[in-house]
Formats: sequence, C-alpha cells, structure tokens
Amino acid sequence: MTISRSWPHPEIRFDLQTLRAAQPLTHVLTNIVVTNFTANVLLAIGAAPAMVIAEEEAGQFAQVASGLLINVGTVTAADARAQLIAAEAAHKAGTPWALDPVAVGFLSLRTRIASELLAFRPAIIRGNASEILALAGVSAGGRGVDSTSGSHEAIDGAKALAKSVGAVVAVSGEVDYLTDGDAIVEIPGGHVIMTRVTGVGCALGATMAAFLGAKLSPLRAATAASAVFARAGERAVANARGPGSFAVNFLDELSRIGDENDAD
Amino acid sequence: MTISRSWPHPEIRFDLQTLRAAQPLTHVLTNIVVTNFTANVLLAIGAAPAMVIAEEEAGQFAQVASGLLINVGTVTAADARAQLIAAEAAHKAGTPWALDPVAVGFLSLRTRIASELLAFRPAIIRGNASEILALAGVSAGGRGVDSTSGSHEAIDGAKALAKSVGAVVAVSGEVDYLTDGDAIVEIPGGHVIMTRVTGVGCALGATMAAFLGAKLSPLRAATAASAVFARAGERAVANARGPGSFAVNFLDELSRIGDENDAD
Amino acid sequence: MTISRSWPHPEIRFDLQTLRAAQPLTHVLTNIVVTNFTANVLLAIGAAPAMVIAEEEAGQFAQVASGLLINVGTVTAADARAQLIAAEAAHKAGTPWALDPVAVGFLSLRTRIASELLAFRPAIIRGNASEILALAGVSAGGRGVDSTSGSHEAIDGAKALAKSVGAVVAVSGEVDYLTDGDAIVEIPGGHVIMTRVTGVGCALGATMAAFLGAKLSPLRAATAASAVFARAGERAVANARGPGSFAVNFLDELSRIGDENDAD
Repeated sequence: MTISRSWPHPEIRFDLQTLRAAQPLTHVLTNIVVTNFTANVLLAIGAAPAMVIAEEEAGQFAQVASGLLINVGTVTAADARAQLIAAEAAHKAGTPWALDPVAVGFLSLRTRIASELLAFRPAIIRGNASEILALAGVSAGGRGVDSTSGSHEAIDGAKALAKSVGAVVAVSGEVDYLTDGDAIVEIPGGHVIMTRVTGVGCALGATMAAFLGAKLSPLRAATAASAVFARAGERAVANARGPGSFAVNFLDELSRIGDENDAD
Repeated sequence: MTISRSWPHPEIRFDLQTLRAAQPLTHVLTNIVVTNFTANVLLAIGAAPAMVIAEEEAGQFAQVASGLLINVGTVTAADARAQLIAAEAAHKAGTPWALDPVAVGFLSLRTRIASELLAFRPAIIRGNASEILALAGVSAGGRGVDSTSGSHEAIDGAKALAKSVGAVVAVSGEVDYLTDGDAIVEIPGGHVIMTRVTGVGCALGATMAAFLGAKLSPLRAATAASAVFARAGERAVANARGPGSFAVNFLDELSRIGDENDAD
Repeated sequence: MTISRSWPHPEIRFDLQTLRAAQPLTHVLTNIVVTNFTANVLLAIGAAPAMVIAEEEAGQFAQVASGLLINVGTVTAADARAQLIAAEAAHKAGTPWALDPVAVGFLSLRTRIASELLAFRPAIIRGNASEILALAGVSAGGRGVDSTSGSHEAIDGAKALAKSVGAVVAVSGEVDYLTDGDAIVEIPGGHVIMTRVTGVGCALGATMAAFLGAKLSPLRAATAASAVFARAGERAVANARGPGSFAVNFLDELSRIGDENDAD
C-alpha cells in the first residue's frame, strides 16, 4: 500500500498545531556542521531544542526530554559514548528517538556506532538512499554525505530495515519514502536547492524527533516533518536568489506554515 | 534604586563608540550551537572575537585578551578543563570576564563547573531567570535552556547572587534586570522573536564580555550590551518575515546602530 | 614576475566550470566557528564538502577525497591527532591538500601542530600576513586571528616559505598575493566587509582545497578561489545593509558567478 501525502493535508496541519502546542523539548546530539541550523529549524517550527552532549549529562537529559535525535555525521569516540548513553537512557525511559546514520557504510567508526545504536530501538531512521541501503546491509554506502542512489531504489531495503529494527524508515530524496515495513508513504515536493544548503536533511531528522516528542506515532511524525519541509522548501525557493537566501527564507517559512494567516 | 536605560541614551551611545574604538580582543569559550553566531555578533558590533578553546592555549590567550566569556551550554569534561584554566588565568591577569550558566541546575556537570568557575570571580553573570535562581541556590533550574520563571521573579535571587559573588548579575527576559547587589538597572525593549533564534542570549553574554574588554565597569558593560541588543532587535524585527530574516537583520542593525547615520 | 588576475578572466571562468563539473569531494577539518559557513560556501560554489573529523575515520576519508583542507583555528589535542592522520594519509595517497595556519605564532599548540603538518607537504598554505610571517619564522604572529601586518609586507616571507615547503603560499589581505616561490599572482578586489563576517578567509582556504580536488595546479587553484571570492564579495556587498545580509548575498553570488546568465 502506497499513499501520497503533501501539504496542505488536514492531518498534517493538525499535527503541526499539536507540535506547536506541545513545544516538545527535543534533545539533539548531532554533527558540528549543522548544530546551529538544526536549533534554528526546531525553534522556527515551534519546538524547544536542547543540545546536551556531555556523556555526564546526555543520559540524564534524554530521560526528561520529549524526543531525541542522534546523528552520527561527525561522531568521535567521545561523542559516541554520549550517544550510546543517551540512546540507552531514552530506550529505558520511553523517550522516542530518531537516528540519522549520516555516511554510514564506508566509514568505520560511525558504521559500528550506528549498528550499536540500533539495539536501543530508534522509532525512526532517516537517511538518504545510500545510507539506508548501507544500514540495511544491502550496499557499502555512498560517497561521503551524498547519496549515489535514487530514493526509490532504496524502498525494498527500507522495508527490510524497518521490519528488522521495528522502526519507521524514512528515505530522503527527490521523493521521500517512509515505511513501517508494510505501508509506504511517499512525500513529493521540495526542491533541489535543499541539497545545496548544508543540514536540511539533518534538520529534517531533528524535526521528526520533535514530532515524536509531540506524541505522534513514528509514521505520522516522519510524515508530518517531511511534508512540512517539502512545502516550506517550495515556498522558500520562490523568492530566493541562491542557497544563502533560500536558507533564510526556509526558516521564515517554517515559522509561518500553518499559522492563522496561512490559507494554503 | 531602580533606573531604566534604553537606546538612545548618551551614555550608551558613548560606550558603544568606546567599544568600536577599542576593538577589544574578546576571548570566547562558548557552546557549539552558537559559536558562529556569537563571532558574527561580535564582529558586527565592532569587537574582535577569538575562540581559543584548547586547554593548552586557553590560559595563554585569556591573559592577553581584553575580555573573556565562558558559556557552559554544551560543556564536556574536556571543555571544562579549558574553561577553568581560562578563568583562572583571567583572574590572575586581571582580564575581566563574564559567565553564562546555560541550563545550570538540573544538569550535573555544568552545575558543578559553574560553581567551580565562580571561584575565579566573574565580573558579570548573565542568564535567564531559571539559571540565575539555580545559581543563587534558590531553585533547581528550568527546563533545558528555556526559563520557567519571568525575569522579575529572579530579582531578589540576582541581588543575593551579586552580593555573594561580587559580580554584576544580568537576568534576561521580557525586561532585562541588571544588578550589582544594590542598584537595579532595567532594560525594556527587544522582541519575543529574539527567543526564537538560537544564541541571542549567548551572544548577549559575549557582547557584555566585549564591553568589559573596552574597560567599562561591569554594570555599565552589562547595561550597554543589553540596551544595544534591545534596540537592534526592535529595528531588526521591523523588516523581518520570521526568525531567519530577523537573525540576518539583527547582525546588520548591530553594525549600524550608533554610527554617523543613526540619528535615533 | 608579478601578474594580476581578476574576474572575469577566461582561465578562471574555465577553472570554475571544471570545479562544477567535477563536484570534488572536499574533506574539511576546520575550526568549530566556521564549519557550517564553510560547508555552505563549498556547496554554493559546486563542491561536495565532507567534515569527517574522528581520528578513526579522518585518514580513511582523506585517501578517497579529491582535496583536503586542514585549518587549525580551534585545534585541540584530539583534533590535532585527526589532522596529522589525515595529512599523512593525504600525502601517501596523493590527495592534494591546503593548510590554514590560523593564529599560528603566539599560541603554542597550533604552532607546534602546524609545523608538524608541514612535513606532509601541503600543496597550498593560506593565511593572513601575520600567520604567513609567523610560519615563515619571520615574526611571532599577530593578535589572535587578525593580522597586524599588511599583505604586501608578507611577500618576501611568503616566497621564502613557498620555497622551503615546496608549496604555493597565499597571503590574504586587501590585495591577495599568491606565490610558488618565484612567480607572484596578485588578486585585487573584494571588500573590507569580508573581514567582518567570520569564516570568509577560512572558507577561501576550503575553496582552494576544492579547486585542488578538481585537479588544478596549486597556483591555479589558489588563483581561481581568490579571484572568485573577490568578485563574489564585490557583488554581494552591492545590496547588503551590513554583515548579516552580506553573508547571505555572498553564498547566493558564489552559486551564480560564471553560470550561463553571468555575462560579466
């Protein structure tokens, strides 16, 4: 079963209002390239980000947070300890969390850490096609952070990974595909310029964690985040002269989408 | 005694000119979320930021810097060593410094480190109401980086903390309250959107350190930074469509406020 | 022999097209202040940045990357291990790399690390006059990250350094001077506002690494990056109200310069 979801859909609009009312405290352990942008995306959409990264504190905070993102994009051995502690604490406390396996496959440390993190049962795994295929054991991964496969090529791998982990798997690409192992949700839209600003994909994973923190089901959380990103991206590109103004507009649009003045 | 200060006030305009003439070398040890924004804020206002974070170099640099900021927002054990070394070196060398106790209270490592840092006598402590109350020992702190108390609720705690440490304490909120333990300066203005961009509060602490570096007294440094931020924020929001364009405008306004074309 | 190069020059336009066709995988080990901006600059110009910073992965990735940048701006002992591993791997694998010796001279750790890195033969060394003079052994370096000398004062030091290391040395300033030890290329243009946005110089070093990754000679890579930056900077300042909008415009202009609509 494949269904297509895009903005404006009453369910997605409702879920966005839910997030804004909840202001979910979203614990973010992400890579150093995108930390600032991720925090600004979460603030723009209405969540409350908190980057608590020390191994002495990450578990303590994951217990009280509403949702958690772990992104291995620039993971070091010290970061990895904090990430494993946070994931374990989240798992024990029932804090739902999302995993972003950036560039898993070729690179040794992150591939091992991502594999260990799976034991703590992420609710959502979000990546590009190469990353999902690598995590599913289908391929050796892509070229750095870019995908060498189209998102549709990873659907079977995503379904297998979803079933084996018990997670929703989100494959980002020209069309986003989300699956719980059975149903497939496809999210069209967005714009290619979203790949020319660093951190859009990483911030999408964080936004999924925020929706999890607003107590949405994993499939619904991943769907809402993807559909909001796709539409905000389309709006942001309309008045953009390039990737610099696109990123600024994107934050503005995330803060406005679905508000009382948004008839669309 | 409570006095109110806002832009344009001749004293604040004069202090801003002093900062721009001095271009104070401002040593910044801050959290990884706001490093870039903080550097850009300091450059925009006319200071010279330098993020020297290694424990081998932090003390060396704190001795020659004009002012220092220490912010514990994402402090790890390794960062903490560098922060303590920097604070001690600043204390010994007479470099005035500001402490930003982000999310102190609930989280264990930073609460311990902030307490140890106090021994090296910060000239200014800047935080939101929850952080100031936690540091004053009045409460257990807020929810992550957000305050769960209004800034006026922290005035008594701020005065007590100011007296016990011998520092100026700045409580950020809808109105900013600054106190040396006796006098209270209130800074109205600003805009709620300043809480929807990550790092505005952290950059305010850094700007206080820059004014310290321009040889202003702690109360005057905290006042000038707060008043300039409040007014630049009001100007920046005028043409903003959301938090993305606000942040861009804010940097622009910081670079223009009080210059020869600014009649206000 | 001194030649002057500026946009539009047929060779530079051609080299930019070469970079965009190659989309060089550019491995970046840089300071925490500029990581995000550097990634966005590289994406804007058409390269594929990857910040792989763990010591377990940095050597692995430097072997497969097309070009590498090492910037010591906030280097810690742990970062230094990864940087030395990456430089050695790049040297062995033939991956050309650029070194940015930020604030070398006064600060102890980075000065030692930069000296050790030279053994792995960078193709390009880029810095301001103070940094180049310090690395050349001529002076003790500048004040933090700012230069205390004009770029023309470093030409002799740059030539000596270029000869002793066997690298192209690029001195950034009001005019950029590039030398392989014999020829000198001077790049006029740019704008002083480029010194009021953090990371422009650091991103220039990364862009040189990207041009190296597109298989340009070191002198040509440094020339192309500098000339494109100077011209994009001039264009970006035209509609800027301050450093915030300048940085946004600069990314936009980098993405547009030399494309099919760019007659200049």
